[in-house]
Formats: sequence, structure tokens, C-alpha cells
Amino acid sequence: MARKEDISASVIRRLPRYYRFLGELLDRGQLRISSADLAAQMSLTASQIRQDLNCFGGFGQPGSGYNIPELHREIGHILGLDCRRRAVLIGAGNLGRAIAIHMNFPQYGMELRGIFDSDKSKTGLTVSGMKIMPVSLLEEFVRREKPETAILCIPKEGAEECAELLIRCGVMAFWNFSHCDLTAKHKGIIAENVHLGDSLMLLSYGLTNSDREF
Amino acid sequence: MARKEDISASVIRRLPRYYRFLGELLDRGQLRISSADLAAQMSLTASQIRQDLNCFGGFGQPGSGYNIPELHREIGHILGLDCRRRAVLIGAGNLGRAIAIHMNFPQYGMELRGIFDSDKSKTGLTVSGMKIMPVSLLEEFVRREKPETAILCIPKEGAEECAELLIRCGVMAFWNFSHCDLTAKHKGIIAENVHLGDSLMLLSYGLTNSDREF
Repeated sequence: MARKEDISASVIRRLPRYYRFLGELLDRGQLRISSADLAAQMSLTASQIRQDLNCFGGFGQPGSGYNIPELHREIGHILGLDCRRRAVLIGAGNLGRAIAIHMNFPQYGMELRGIFDSDKSKTGLTVSGMKIMPVSLLEEFVRREKPETAILCIPKEGAEECAELLIRCGVMAFWNFSHCDLTAKHKGIIAENVHLGDSLMLLSYGLTNSDREF
Repeated sequence: MARKEDISASVIRRLPRYYRFLGELLDRGQLRISSADLAAQMSLTASQIRQDLNCFGGFGQPGSGYNIPELHREIGHILGLDCRRRAVLIGAGNLGRAIAIHMNFPQYGMELRGIFDSDKSKTGLTVSGMKIMPVSLLEEFVRREKPETAILCIPKEGAEECAELLIRCGVMAFWNFSHCDLTAKHKGIIAENVHLGDSLMLLSYGLTNSDREF
């Protein structure tokens, strides 16, 4: 098996899609698939599939295809989904509450341990089985519970100050819905930025220019 | 000014970030910026900024920088944000309701005209000023209102059938939170897929392998 260090960033970015797709095949009870079939179903080329998945070695056998359960498990392991990392969510507005309820965190190797909001009318309400806590308790909570990940669902204005507090308390990864640029200021942290608006703008572009691919 | 056809797909994918960033400068009352300053603030190189923005021509002047209001307006126009396209949302679960309330659709050139759900206990409830309608009325609504865009916030299982109905009725663009692959089956439609889980998996990968960039 290849060492993880040898896997390129672009292959990594494609791993979640492989993981999802192989999971669906498993759910349907399928145990093996050829690179040609996988390629056809995922709208990729067989050669790209082979190149990508050969990074993990040992799961494809000429003539019998890929062992789906093993490949699925190995990709999950590389993505760290077999961990149980603590996370905290800041911002229990509509989006924050939806994220707390909609996402099956254990499936992604995470466990949501606390939900915070600065709006006093929200504190004490229950979301996803947890009582929303006031941000005044955030620092104490983070120092005690030591979550590695924070999910930021607050407006940009408060997000930078909040991120600084969290980083000071040892949080090193951000799932960032807050439209602030965290990695420019804070080297060494990990951020996945979700810009729903950017995605909607690209859809608008596609409609406006629908005679061409984008 | 360059024709839109000359702008590469990778430049297009960067436009929403420029648009957002220039909008923030405008909100702070700034009217001009040099490519060097813009580059520093956006963590890009001045040369990339010049290459990207020269696609639209005429907004950068040596020595005086970019005219922010004009450049912002022009990028918005290219993205089609000065339109008012009709959209319909299917799936008023936690995520669907959050999208309906959280997103400022007119800001993205869209107008949300209807919200549908198959769950009878939800129909009649009001979200974002609209009563949730039963999916049994969806076809009639789409034929009458002619939305170009559908926002899919339903589980994958029902999404493909729903998309087929919508495409048959003339919907051509999908903001797709449903984890189904629409473009493989339906050529010519436009889809922006939002996979929140993929983003969370990449964050998990980053944490698991935090000694390297990804």
C-alpha cells in the first residue's frame, strides 16, 4: 500500500465521492466492481479510476475488479472517518440548527459536543438533543472538552473574533460557513470553507450563459 | 471588453470570490484598489488578479488601480446577478427550511416562488413568508410559474424522480443538495451540487493528516 504522503491533493479531493459511491454499492449488497463499471457509473474514465485507486494498492485485481468493502473501509480510514473527534458548533441560527440536526456527525468521524449562540433568547433551547449554551461559556467549555473542530455558522463580523478565541484555546480545524478567511491570518489551522452563495452565483452564471459548459 | 466566451472556466469559478470581496470593500466605502493591495488582501498574486480581471477589460488603470464599483457591477452582470429568475424549493426539512430562510435569493439574481414537501404534516406551515405546498401540486405549479431553477433538499431516493418531473416541465437548473448525479442522466441541464458531507470528510482528512497541506 502506498504511503499517504504519496497521494496527491487532487486525488484526496476526489476521495469523498469515491467513498460515497462505494457506500451506495455496498448498501445494495454489491461486493466487487470492475474499474470499467465504476467508471461508467461515476462518469469518469477507467484509467482515471485505476490511477486514483491504485494509490491505495491491493484492492483491484485484474479480471475480478475491486473488493468494494475493503476499498470503502480503506478510503474511510484515510479520510479519518473511523475516528470520533469532538466538535463544537457556534451559531444556532437557521443554518447552524439545520447543520446540527441534518448532519450525521459520527458518519464523518465526528461527535458534536456543544452548541453556542450569543442570542440570549436562544440559550436553553434544545437542538439535536443539546441545550444551546451562551457564548460567554464557550472558552471554559473548549478548555474543558478540548474539541479539535469548530463549526462556524455566525455572521462574518463576529466570526474572526470567535475564531481567535477558539484557536487560542487549541481548536485547530474549522468547518467555516462564516465567509471569513481564517487561513490567511492563522497559519497552521485547517479550514473547509462552505460558501453557499458562491455556489448559487455559479448556478446563476450557468443559467445566464447556458449555451456553454462551465 | 472581452466577450464572455473568451473567459475560461477556472476564471469563472473564481468570480464569486472576487464579487464578494469587492462588495465588502464597497460596503466600507472604498472606491479604488491596486492589484497589489487586492492580491495581498485576497492571498493571491497581483499577476493572477491582473490576468483574471483583465478578462473584463477597462477597469484597471496603471497607477490608479481598479474602479471597484464598476468592476463589482460588471462581475455581477457576468454572473447574472442582476436578473430575477424564478426558483422553487423541494424539501422543507431542516436543511431546506434553513436554505429558504438563510439565503438572500434576490442578491443572487433569484426569487424563491414556492416551497414543496411530500410530508403532509408540513404542508400549510409557513417558511420565509410562503406556505409549504404538497408535492402533488408541484407539476401544476411549475407549468404555471415556469421556474428555471429548482433547489433540491430531499433525500437521494426521491430526488431523481422529482428531477425528472421538473425537467419534463422545463426546469433547467438545479441547486442540488440531494447527492444524486443529475447531469449524467440529463444532458443539457445545469447543476451545482452541494455535498456538505464531502466537505466534512475533507476536514476530517485534514485533521487526520495535519502535518501536510491538502
